[in-house]
Amino acid sequence: MPQIAFLECSRCHHHLPADTPQTLCPLCAGSLYVRYDMDALRRSAQREDPAARAVASSTSLGMWRYASVLPDVTPVTLGEGWTPMLQSKRYPGLFIKEEGANPTGTFKARGLSLAVTMAKHYGLKHLAVPSAGNAAGALAAYAAAADIAAHIYMPQDVPFANYLEGVVYGADVHMVDGLISDCARLVGEQIKSQREANTPAEETWFDISTLKEPFRVEGKKTMGYELVEQLQWTYPDAVFYPTGGGVGLIGMWKAFEEMEAIGWIAPGSKRPKMYALQASGCAPVARAFDEGKPASEFFQNAATFAAGLRVPKPYGDSIILDIVRASGGKALAVDDETILASILDYAKNEGIFLSPEGAAATAAYDQLLATGELTPTDRVVLFNTGAGLKYTDMTAEAMHLRRPGSLPKSLPVGGIITPQ
Amino acid sequence: MPQIAFLECSRCHHHLPADTPQTLCPLCAGSLYVRYDMDALRRSAQREDPAARAVASSTSLGMWRYASVLPDVTPVTLGEGWTPMLQSKRYPGLFIKEEGANPTGTFKARGLSLAVTMAKHYGLKHLAVPSAGNAAGALAAYAAAADIAAHIYMPQDVPFANYLEGVVYGADVHMVDGLISDCARLVGEQIKSQREANTPAEETWFDISTLKEPFRVEGKKTMGYELVEQLQWTYPDAVFYPTGGGVGLIGMWKAFEEMEAIGWIAPGSKRPKMYALQASGCAPVARAFDEGKPASEFFQNAATFAAGLRVPKPYGDSIILDIVRASGGKALAVDDETILASILDYAKNEGIFLSPEGAAATAAYDQLLATGELTPTDRVVLFNTGAGLKYTDMTAEAMHLRRPGSLPKSLPVGGIITPQ
Repeated sequence: MPQIAFLECSRCHHHLPADTPQTLCPLCAGSLYVRYDMDALRRSAQREDPAARAVASSTSLGMWRYASVLPDVTPVTLGEGWTPMLQSKRYPGLFIKEEGANPTGTFKARGLSLAVTMAKHYGLKHLAVPSAGNAAGALAAYAAAADIAAHIYMPQDVPFANYLEGVVYGADVHMVDGLISDCARLVGEQIKSQREANTPAEETWFDISTLKEPFRVEGKKTMGYELVEQLQWTYPDAVFYPTGGGVGLIGMWKAFEEMEAIGWIAPGSKRPKMYALQASGCAPVARAFDEGKPASEFFQNAATFAAGLRVPKPYGDSIILDIVRASGGKALAVDDETILASILDYAKNEGIFLSPEGAAATAAYDQLLATGELTPTDRVVLFNTGAGLKYTDMTAEAMHLRRPGSLPKSLPVGGIITPQ
Repeated sequence: MPQIAFLECSRCHHHLPADTPQTLCPLCAGSLYVRYDMDALRRSAQREDPAARAVASSTSLGMWRYASVLPDVTPVTLGEGWTPMLQSKRYPGLFIKEEGANPTGTFKARGLSLAVTMAKHYGLKHLAVPSAGNAAGALAAYAAAADIAAHIYMPQDVPFANYLEGVVYGADVHMVDGLISDCARLVGEQIKSQREANTPAEETWFDISTLKEPFRVEGKKTMGYELVEQLQWTYPDAVFYPTGGGVGLIGMWKAFEEMEAIGWIAPGSKRPKMYALQASGCAPVARAFDEGKPASEFFQNAATFAAGLRVPKPYGDSIILDIVRASGGKALAVDDETILASILDYAKNEGIFLSPEGAAATAAYDQLLATGELTPTDRVVLFNTGAGLKYTDMTAEAMHLRRPGSLPKSLPVGGIITPQ
């Protein structure tokens, strides 16, 4: 595993050391990237047969198969990564990357596995996060595994599973009558007041918000390595990514840069077009893309049952827009009705139960097939960022589906109740 | 992939051909096992580096890495198997096999992937299953992937996720005011009446109940191969298995037999002690074990929030008891309160959110540590048969936890609600 050479600001390219915890660039508040000595990495990184090492290990390696391009630390792992890539039954070029197979049921596990690993390495004792729901659950799980306190803030109307997992993992759970942006403000205020009160360092919370520290994006970059490896070290034509905070998309782009620099991708390979998919009820990136703007504006009255997409202004919006444009991709939004229809379509016809976020991507894919912008043989990797089952209450609500068990207890044993 | 030599009755050892769909032994109603030409298998089976093939494939192979010991057919796959094996943070010998990472969130995916694969191979058009909940969801998913109709019968008080997934995947869902035993009776009656009405073969349902056809157990045997491979081709000292129908335990034992015959396990290796874990509210196998009986009796008034353990009389009870006794293991039951406490313990201290069934196993493990029957360094593989998140409603109910979102809407944005 490589040493970190330095942290680099994504905006002003200022360098910072990684020997103490860092948040944002002190000069311009830009997000920080982890950088390695690329010459050393080129010599040491092992693309060949990391899978064989999974067998030699007592646990399956998951995303840590890419240890040779991750910081040199002892992982806090719950088995994240190396998720299935499922070829569509109907569209030969479509591959659904099933991130619901991760611990806590979403891709958030990758970023928080690495970020909590680094927090433990730095000796941090209190981690705080504002979340649309799934990052909160993942932080709670990894913090529990690392014996670190987790302070989680999320909207009170997240999927109930997010609330339950926070409580079950023993986190300090705060349900907020507001959105992730309100949660972020509350975390910031809390940390500010701790500093003003001269709270001892070991009791002060560390803000592990996405893109406000460098390691969540670094963990999520493994999705980029993985999709390329699962396509036999080639790029697909396009990547479809449901975009709330958009950090997975940013992380994958970083992975592509690194793989090209290391030599794991054939020279001259064309990077995939990156599609950022949102819900019409909260589409700041899609709107900015349409309007040709370099950054998004705060999306008022955000509302969609795709809970993970309720991010009114992602911190990395300008990075996302840059990547989408540079790649020749698009940012698109679809409405909740279309998302729900796509959940049912892919469940009935492919056997895959998508999250609402994942179904925003499939719905957009289907639209682009219909317009002819894509063909069914174009190689597309589409991310289902979470398990459909994690949204049981939200999806059932959207379907107006009620538990049949509320029927009279007096029914005789063996009485059958068929829905509809 | 090997040809099936014949199907063999587990009771009377009668042989049947596998070229048409089979259910039970026509002579004695015993469950059927798939048998291969073991000499041919010894020559062809590839233990070496199946992982490298996963890399060469466009999808990750999952349980199909063991294709060389599975029937020679084209898989209906959703990415099942090759689940994480998580070493405990507290007990160095304890490895938790996280089956919640499977499609539909449980180990049931393995058996139904293979059984639906074979059903498609045979050209069957209608599959029916009685289920405690999770098999219904898995059948619905794989049948959708295979374009086969699924008819599922489950108790109306299963976890809501089981109901939702049945509906979403487009299955014919029947919620029964009763237990899995009532569901089995209803499926049997339905098929009987179809036969009596001379329903055309392609419209007649095929009963894909566990142990009433040979391929679900054959798919579940991959858990045995996998745990041994993940322990570098050695046996652990013990296997802890939550036992509802108990088919996973039966399948693993078959895998151990095969691996010894093929030569993948060193000669003279001692097989693990097999522990069958149940809930006190439905403990037919544990009771029969205690009483020294060869088979279980129907467990009256079965009730436990470990929904998958509500099987009042498993069809394979005598096989399970034989295996448990032959291995030097035990069948044990723990009560719901202890199961819930174990869920919270492992979540807070290990970062692993167990299903109630999995927590029956951890609770029993902890009890045997306390009595000194086990030590923390004994190598134990313990199965978490399902994702804790799939039981969100049941576990929350057991914890008396309610959604905080029911608080007044008039709270100002940014108002914080902290549970308790």
